[in-house]
Amino acid sequence: MASSYKAPMPTVQKNPIKEVGNLNPPTRLLCGPGPGNAHPRVHAAMSLPQIGHLDPAFMALVEDLKALLRYVWQTDNEFTIPVSGTGSAAWEAAVANLTSPGDVHLTCVNGYFGERHCDMASRYGAKVERLERPWGEAFTLAEITAAMEKTKPQILWLCYAETSTGIRQPMEGIAELCRKHECLLMLDTVTAIGGVPLYLDKWGVDACYAGTQKCLSCPPGVAPLTLGPRALAKMAKRAEKGEKVANWYLDMTMIQKYLVAAAGAPRVYHHTAPISMVYAFREALTLIAEEGLEEVWKRHSDTAEYFWGLMADMGLEMLVKDPNERLTSLHTVKVPEGINAAEAVKHCREKFRIEIGGGLGAALSGKIWRIGLMGFNSRKEIALQVAAALKDALMAQGWKGPNKGVL
Amino acid sequence: MASSYKAPMPTVQKNPIKEVGNLNPPTRLLCGPGPGNAHPRVHAAMSLPQIGHLDPAFMALVEDLKALLRYVWQTDNEFTIPVSGTGSAAWEAAVANLTSPGDVHLTCVNGYFGERHCDMASRYGAKVERLERPWGEAFTLAEITAAMEKTKPQILWLCYAETSTGIRQPMEGIAELCRKHECLLMLDTVTAIGGVPLYLDKWGVDACYAGTQKCLSCPPGVAPLTLGPRALAKMAKRAEKGEKVANWYLDMTMIQKYLVAAAGAPRVYHHTAPISMVYAFREALTLIAEEGLEEVWKRHSDTAEYFWGLMADMGLEMLVKDPNERLTSLHTVKVPEGINAAEAVKHCREKFRIEIGGGLGAALSGKIWRIGLMGFNSRKEIALQVAAALKDALMAQGWKGPNKGVL
Repeated sequence: MASSYKAPMPTVQKNPIKEVGNLNPPTRLLCGPGPGNAHPRVHAAMSLPQIGHLDPAFMALVEDLKALLRYVWQTDNEFTIPVSGTGSAAWEAAVANLTSPGDVHLTCVNGYFGERHCDMASRYGAKVERLERPWGEAFTLAEITAAMEKTKPQILWLCYAETSTGIRQPMEGIAELCRKHECLLMLDTVTAIGGVPLYLDKWGVDACYAGTQKCLSCPPGVAPLTLGPRALAKMAKRAEKGEKVANWYLDMTMIQKYLVAAAGAPRVYHHTAPISMVYAFREALTLIAEEGLEEVWKRHSDTAEYFWGLMADMGLEMLVKDPNERLTSLHTVKVPEGINAAEAVKHCREKFRIEIGGGLGAALSGKIWRIGLMGFNSRKEIALQVAAALKDALMAQGWKGPNKGVL
Repeated sequence: MASSYKAPMPTVQKNPIKEVGNLNPPTRLLCGPGPGNAHPRVHAAMSLPQIGHLDPAFMALVEDLKALLRYVWQTDNEFTIPVSGTGSAAWEAAVANLTSPGDVHLTCVNGYFGERHCDMASRYGAKVERLERPWGEAFTLAEITAAMEKTKPQILWLCYAETSTGIRQPMEGIAELCRKHECLLMLDTVTAIGGVPLYLDKWGVDACYAGTQKCLSCPPGVAPLTLGPRALAKMAKRAEKGEKVANWYLDMTMIQKYLVAAAGAPRVYHHTAPISMVYAFREALTLIAEEGLEEVWKRHSDTAEYFWGLMADMGLEMLVKDPNERLTSLHTVKVPEGINAAEAVKHCREKFRIEIGGGLGAALSGKIWRIGLMGFNSRKEIALQVAAALKDALMAQGWKGPNKGVL
């Protein structure tokens, strides 16, 4: 009987070249929750010719990257690497490598990303315990202490910089608590790294991940991950027991042999690293080291205060009331009564080519805008431009502001 | 008692900027097993300004990419997408989404990557059945048929283009076999896509992945994945049963809502896509469509035959004896008696800045070289240059060739 499948034939399906146009992305000022605009030198780095992922010159370049990343994160962790994916991949690497089935993850949920952690950790067999706060509020040490006593977790997950709410989590006392309970501290710093002060070692953080597309002014596609001595000990103990990491691509026991081998030890192939993204990441970190970390933090803080002032002048409220609890990178502005948030986002994009973000999740969708002034975009002129565009979007909906100050 | 952890202080650890130099990767002609050199237009695409991962203009650009990718793979699959990682991530996406715990994966192992599939699939609870051939030999349909009868797999994994050996797997009859046994056909096309003829739909392939850094002349960091109707049906059935994909980052039931939503349906945020890599990938696919797929295949074939002729003239043997079973992208050359393979690789890199690859795994390490003439590098002038450099490396070790032809 004739088969419905034939051997390869010398005819091919239709060529779509006439239907697709040239690659021609529009100009955008990216002031949403990320990505932000990459620095021109970062774009230039991606244009440099490629080398192989096992080339000694590539390994040397990665060593430089690691040194710069340790500085930006303020950690001495030997295991401080670029993960071959976006921020969520680095996050999942932390979860997959440090979770034994049955481990309790005490997850502090005060925004969208806390929910994501519950989902992600549960896929690796974790018993997820939730500690909740309204979206946009930080956790107190007393609350976390009580939850730790009650749930006895192996891992405490905290979001230092909640991208869905703009809240900054105070870190005082957390390290002691985690050591007392022999619990690993896993910290999300996606929207903080390279913009908001971070002291991983001083805070006793055991596992930390971030993204490159926020304050690092680098496109997404590679992501920072660091594991401290207590995390590595757990990883080693799991390996000794024959517990394979339930994820091949993100198995750090294998990637360790490629990216964190001892000096002189051979580098063992695992997967092909994203060469051009590693160049970009290294250049982005170099830019921060050139400017100086404290200067970078101060620039973000100055720009943030200027922007908050503009919002106040316009009569707009911030979701996070206490300025000390606000991120200096991502700003959450309440949508005034009677205003359609999504319309305003569209107005900014279509009239001014400016991207701002809407609220994420049921609690905040339509209730806030998320405005990122991060990395290369953390500048007063950008703050002013975005604020003015937002005012124009509000006026287009018949809104009347107080007309104070420059706006 | 004083704590060993202090609140953030206004002092930061040492700035390493003086120790790290400028980003200055060396010039390399990349003729190993990958990455190859990216096309200049692909590098230029990465320099284009970024837009947001939810911007309507980004979604339009991804639709173009999907149309081009379908053409290059010769498939009509609606689910044909860029995965946010390198080729191994797209591979793991196929495995994670299509494997229910206990599923039998009949894995055809005739090289390094077959071993990897056994490892990867086992992490998702698959019962791995191995069908083995010596490295560098293809499987016959009779062998596969017998193994299918015996193991009754849910998934048959085949490597169309084994990057560790240079062998090409004949695909005749496999589709019928998989349908007869109600088994999904998963195909590795990493080193074939955009270089070696591929007809996914004609071959009845249900799930296929590849890399961008070989014949597509694009840096690694994003990877093609396609799932056909039978694969999607299995994914949907698993979801209906409440079986969560054991991997958050690569959960295609969620990514489907972001990248494969019906026309007009809202795009649901999952993770931040690697924007610049998506630009690069789209441009790389455009280059192939501009040249024409059959012309691209013919160029690879012409360059390969020219290179094989040069090797024969030099008195060198190919690992894969039958030219019809050889890849036209990656060439495996036997190391002559008395020659140190690694020394020759080093010679090419250090004297000529040319990267060629050594053998991978115990069976072939030190026994072969792997020489990629892929994508942008699939040109006679490159073939000649690499062959001449290899001869120089051999002569440096006292080797005397037949001195036939140009070399």
